[in-house]
Amino acid sequence: MKAYKSMSKEELSALKAELSAAYEDAKGKGLKLNMARGLPSAEQLDMEADFFNTLNPKSEFHSEAGVDCRNYGELIGITEARRLMGDMMGVSPDNVIIFGNSSLNIMYDTVARSMIHGVCGSTPWCKLDKVKFLCPVPGYDRHFAITEQFGIEMINIPMTENGPDMDLVEKYVNSDPAVKGIWCVPKYANPSGVTYSDETVRRFANLKPAAEDFRIYWDNAYIIHHLYNGVEEELLEILGECEKAGNPDMVYEFCSTSKVTFPGSGVAAIASSKTNLDFIRKIITIQTIGHDKLNQLRHVRYFKNLDGMKNHMKKHAEIVRPKFDLVLSTLEKELSEAKIGTWTNPHGGYFVSFNSLDGCAAKIVSMCKEAGVTLTGAGATYPYKKDPNDSNIRIAPTFPPISELAQALEVFVLCVKLASVEKLLEA
Amino acid sequence: MKAYKSMSKEELSALKAELSAAYEDAKGKGLKLNMARGLPSAEQLDMEADFFNTLNPKSEFHSEAGVDCRNYGELIGITEARRLMGDMMGVSPDNVIIFGNSSLNIMYDTVARSMIHGVCGSTPWCKLDKVKFLCPVPGYDRHFAITEQFGIEMINIPMTENGPDMDLVEKYVNSDPAVKGIWCVPKYANPSGVTYSDETVRRFANLKPAAEDFRIYWDNAYIIHHLYNGVEEELLEILGECEKAGNPDMVYEFCSTSKVTFPGSGVAAIASSKTNLDFIRKIITIQTIGHDKLNQLRHVRYFKNLDGMKNHMKKHAEIVRPKFDLVLSTLEKELSEAKIGTWTNPHGGYFVSFNSLDGCAAKIVSMCKEAGVTLTGAGATYPYKKDPNDSNIRIAPTFPPISELAQALEVFVLCVKLASVEKLLEA
Repeated sequence: MKAYKSMSKEELSALKAELSAAYEDAKGKGLKLNMARGLPSAEQLDMEADFFNTLNPKSEFHSEAGVDCRNYGELIGITEARRLMGDMMGVSPDNVIIFGNSSLNIMYDTVARSMIHGVCGSTPWCKLDKVKFLCPVPGYDRHFAITEQFGIEMINIPMTENGPDMDLVEKYVNSDPAVKGIWCVPKYANPSGVTYSDETVRRFANLKPAAEDFRIYWDNAYIIHHLYNGVEEELLEILGECEKAGNPDMVYEFCSTSKVTFPGSGVAAIASSKTNLDFIRKIITIQTIGHDKLNQLRHVRYFKNLDGMKNHMKKHAEIVRPKFDLVLSTLEKELSEAKIGTWTNPHGGYFVSFNSLDGCAAKIVSMCKEAGVTLTGAGATYPYKKDPNDSNIRIAPTFPPISELAQALEVFVLCVKLASVEKLLEA
Repeated sequence: MKAYKSMSKEELSALKAELSAAYEDAKGKGLKLNMARGLPSAEQLDMEADFFNTLNPKSEFHSEAGVDCRNYGELIGITEARRLMGDMMGVSPDNVIIFGNSSLNIMYDTVARSMIHGVCGSTPWCKLDKVKFLCPVPGYDRHFAITEQFGIEMINIPMTENGPDMDLVEKYVNSDPAVKGIWCVPKYANPSGVTYSDETVRRFANLKPAAEDFRIYWDNAYIIHHLYNGVEEELLEILGECEKAGNPDMVYEFCSTSKVTFPGSGVAAIASSKTNLDFIRKIITIQTIGHDKLNQLRHVRYFKNLDGMKNHMKKHAEIVRPKFDLVLSTLEKELSEAKIGTWTNPHGGYFVSFNSLDGCAAKIVSMCKEAGVTLTGAGATYPYKKDPNDSNIRIAPTFPPISELAQALEVFVLCVKLASVEKLLEA
């Protein structure tokens, strides 16, 4: 096979005929496969069965501080849960508040709180004419959906192999007081798989924001989610870096066990400075009496400590890694010589980020859908769902069993080929 | 003993000396007792031990609709949980969304949502100069804390034996477009124990609000929480009444299993019209991917159905009722002839509402505290913590073991007597 771009019209037309026939065949199979979202597979969830023995009728339900976890109280979470999640993030339990089951919900509420109550005494954002967030792209669609719902203007920041383009970040943050935040997935980023370099983290910590209420929204969703495929990437701990840089209050870090134990039934937490946490506590003490301490207790008793969690994640990696390997080997085998796409080779997280020829992504996704393979919507990795190049597609290989994944990838590469040929014929 | 008010100064002075000596004795005992909040006792929580066997490693984790409850999804809750909570409220599962562990959190978020996004298309409240809520008094301090935090002006509405003074409610709601809500605990009200009469519910349903975005915040916290002490009060189902009256969208109903299974680890829900729920769903789909479905499943599997819940609540009543009996018999024995207080005799809920002579409540609470007995703060049952008569005290007898409750009540009646005598001597 040779690069599609070097083919003549005749060669492309012949190829198109061949691919079209294969595509019609694929459509005829009545497939129903899903690579859309970063969901753990049933096999990963089955592995957690023992979790359900963690609390039983004979359990001691008091926390180490003597709190009956079956009753009201402990707004900020039991100490041992704050310690476990703090260890996960590399910060002190004093810098941690445990919330409910969803870090996304914490992020949403953090933005909502800023809209209504401001940030540690600043003007509530709903009283301002304009609020802006920086959005590294490609990025996580649910982040962008939050800022969009609150009417916050989103500004694209291109991702590099070291994280967001920090020249641009510094330019915006340090000059524009309407810029109140930036969405970051700093480790095994969604979808690019990039882990921010030490220099990137330090440049973040040394920002000189024009807005006193600017905060970094540091969504550390994949903090211990290595694939164990050669390199375990490490991320510099940002709270300490911010403190060193004289910006102790500049970051909110979020994490959860959604992809450690169970999505929807995990434990989520925020880490930040005492000043930020004091303000948050003052607001949330009116919002709730407390979160689910029995579930906090389940997690602490099940894992015991960070090592317990890490060992557990190695088992997850055993299940997940072959799926990534299959994605990468299929793309390599089917697309590399044709030169009709580029893709990432992540060492952790839940995604492979694929870039087609410009102007092909929406078409590929819709062709896949018609053949029974659901992908993340084209454009989803950009604010307002607008991918300026119509090129990025997020591949989420974890959920389907490997046999189904193979079928889905077969359809995917076929659609990439066909869409690329059609694009080149148009030119 | 005779009525304090009919005593001479000399008699009162002699009584004061006697009571003061007893009070000094009480202080010397170093008690540490708590009747402040409506907490279930350890005995009630122990009863739930089997709950922890409900899900085990061999459980089927799929919902009846085939959803794997261990994974993401089902934003509005699994069908069987919506059915269970719907049955509790007497409404269709189609009118129910399940949230997390706290109905208070749902109420807070409902107000927050209205502040930022308005109500089904109305102007966001944060854009208005003035928003007002009606607050039946005495009422629930955490309701008032929510509206206070959002800067919403609160208007006291006196409670009668049939519920809030509906003449006043109609006057405000039907004439003032700034009135956007009313806080109600319609059954076994906190703290009065009143269940709203059928006529009250119908008058609510037939309001003609000046504001299109007026809603009734119907906090049905004690919906199946009978004491089984003679009468099981029934409350007219309000969604149906509102629909009949041509006001289908006028009510948000809230409930939870916080005092059925575990405070902090229960399941909470909202019931409302399709129009309201569609709007809420559109907003919360950005806030979270879903709530804890495993905990929903635990509840459904544990209780099976509404009858299972009701039978369970009868066992709770066995534990709780003797505590209420002790409160009532102590107050009767110690205070009725002296005529220095009135109190309620509830058939359900978690509180006895006590009214001292005017101007004594704060003093009684602080004297109790000095003697080691913590009560709900005086004034807490009123907006802005301002009880205009300084008279209402909420007694929460459920948490302490009965022997401790007896000691606490002994201190309480002593403080009521001493504060009353001092008040009468001032006059």
